[in-house]
Amino acid sequence: MTAPVHRPDAHIAGRAVLVTGGLGFIGSNLALRLRAVGARVTIVDALIPEHGGDLRNLDPHRDDFRIESLDLRRGPPLRRLVRDQDLIFHLAGQVSHGDSMRDPEQDLGLNCVSTLNLVEACRHENPAAILVFSSTRQVYGRPRRLPVHEDDPVDPVDTNGIHKLAGEYYHILYHRTYDVRSVVLRLTNTYGPRQQLRNERQGVTSVLLFQALRGQRVRLFGDGTQRRDFNHVDDVVDALLLAATTPACYGQVLNLGAERPHSLNEFVAALSRHCRFEVEHVPFPDDRKLIDIGDYYGDWSRLRAATGWRPRLDLDAGMRQTVEFFRSHADVYLR
Amino acid sequence: MTAPVHRPDAHIAGRAVLVTGGLGFIGSNLALRLRAVGARVTIVDALIPEHGGDLRNLDPHRDDFRIESLDLRRGPPLRRLVRDQDLIFHLAGQVSHGDSMRDPEQDLGLNCVSTLNLVEACRHENPAAILVFSSTRQVYGRPRRLPVHEDDPVDPVDTNGIHKLAGEYYHILYHRTYDVRSVVLRLTNTYGPRQQLRNERQGVTSVLLFQALRGQRVRLFGDGTQRRDFNHVDDVVDALLLAATTPACYGQVLNLGAERPHSLNEFVAALSRHCRFEVEHVPFPDDRKLIDIGDYYGDWSRLRAATGWRPRLDLDAGMRQTVEFFRSHADVYLR
Repeated sequence: MTAPVHRPDAHIAGRAVLVTGGLGFIGSNLALRLRAVGARVTIVDALIPEHGGDLRNLDPHRDDFRIESLDLRRGPPLRRLVRDQDLIFHLAGQVSHGDSMRDPEQDLGLNCVSTLNLVEACRHENPAAILVFSSTRQVYGRPRRLPVHEDDPVDPVDTNGIHKLAGEYYHILYHRTYDVRSVVLRLTNTYGPRQQLRNERQGVTSVLLFQALRGQRVRLFGDGTQRRDFNHVDDVVDALLLAATTPACYGQVLNLGAERPHSLNEFVAALSRHCRFEVEHVPFPDDRKLIDIGDYYGDWSRLRAATGWRPRLDLDAGMRQTVEFFRSHADVYLR
Repeated sequence: MTAPVHRPDAHIAGRAVLVTGGLGFIGSNLALRLRAVGARVTIVDALIPEHGGDLRNLDPHRDDFRIESLDLRRGPPLRRLVRDQDLIFHLAGQVSHGDSMRDPEQDLGLNCVSTLNLVEACRHENPAAILVFSSTRQVYGRPRRLPVHEDDPVDPVDTNGIHKLAGEYYHILYHRTYDVRSVVLRLTNTYGPRQQLRNERQGVTSVLLFQALRGQRVRLFGDGTQRRDFNHVDDVVDALLLAATTPACYGQVLNLGAERPHSLNEFVAALSRHCRFEVEHVPFPDDRKLIDIGDYYGDWSRLRAATGWRPRLDLDAGMRQTVEFFRSHADVYLR
């Protein structure tokens, strides 16, 4: 493993940090890490039902955070919150591709209006802020080549992809125009502790984990050979912190990715080393077929070159740690 | 001149046609043409002050149109309007780049929310509709090569570009997913009769025309050598009608363009053959410098190949016709 170019912890200790969506899956993992390295963390979360935000994600450290319940679609109260923040991680958003097609107006509000409100708040109240936006590989749609590079054509296949892409453009535009130090990271399939498992519309890894951990039959759409680059959430948190503290990243759009892609069958096989379950292959339902993109894995050499980032947990190690976490917190996550 | 592949008039006579933004510059020219070829035209326009909508644009045929005053940001009333329409031309929107930076939330509403409401209305009430969206070359930002092709990278340099791009993606997505027959045209610098001249924030051609027609000093930012492809609005209307009636265009994004690009100095020189004025070159104001894209002209061979379209009016002929129009309607457009 290459050493990171720098240790972000030293840049973050004592800093004021805002995490939007900080009660959600990735947000809470990030907030806990920020706390551990000595940041003063404010969390903004709208706690929209079924979207993954849950105060218990912060246990047993809940009281160490300033928590503001705010829907970012309401712009004005946000202005006050961004003042005096050194770093802002924008993780709030709607992540379900299917929901974005069923209710595109809600997706527009949660991903597009919210993000515009945030960059506008920074422009007016805190243009010196460092702003990291968690985007998604979904903006590429069906890859034209593999691995996918950041400059490859974008081609969103659902309204979620359209709105996340608009969110990216806002960040880059406000960097160019108003010197906000913004970074866009395109996340791929993230899994790990505090992931919301109950809502089956939040991605394939959460569905598979939920079924496996409960000993249910694991259902794979198609033949399970679709490949993805799976990232453990701890590695995603590493990437977020490194990107925030590496000036060469500002104004950039950067892919995350894995050391190697794995098929969904391999993901399930890794799970099966820790849980007992049966596997069933079923045909794609129509609404999923429309938005399925086949194989995807990204080229993340730009992020590595800029920051030294690379994933520390391979699929097997990540899965072991994830299963252990959920087993010891079954009452919160599996009921 | 190549003959068009077909005459769109025959496909349009007797049809029910909806024009959003139909009281504006391009919308009113389109509506008048549609009327002339025998369509039954409904116009939707919010008549937002300073945005160019004006009932007088339809004179002396105002009474031949069904006119609905509706802000497309309000989705539900739109549902009723799209029912029973054969063709829908979506021209409503905010077009000022500077305004989009000063008030990005308004631009989001007028370009993004409105367009999502329209495609959703079609999906639910009229998926058999043919839907033509007037987008803009602004989505490309600063060209990386000239002429610019449709597959060249998009890179919006203002929030208007971001929101128009989202509007394009909606149209393409709803074509792919719900079989709505949508076409996206990327318009370039359009000029001609019924253009709003008074609001100096609606594009360089309108500013230059207004100054020249009033005999004021014409002010050019920079040295005036920036090249553009100028289209007379009659040619843009041709393109809209051909695209709507050519099945090969559905699901496509297509550039408009001119036989050859002209510099702003050449545009002013063409004007000077019909009006008397002085010219002054002034430095770019800061806010315009930020969003100026230098030279731009597009490759429009795709649209030509699919439809046979090409501009019928060169700059000199177009300018003569335009100046004559505004001179004979000075009380409406120049006061």
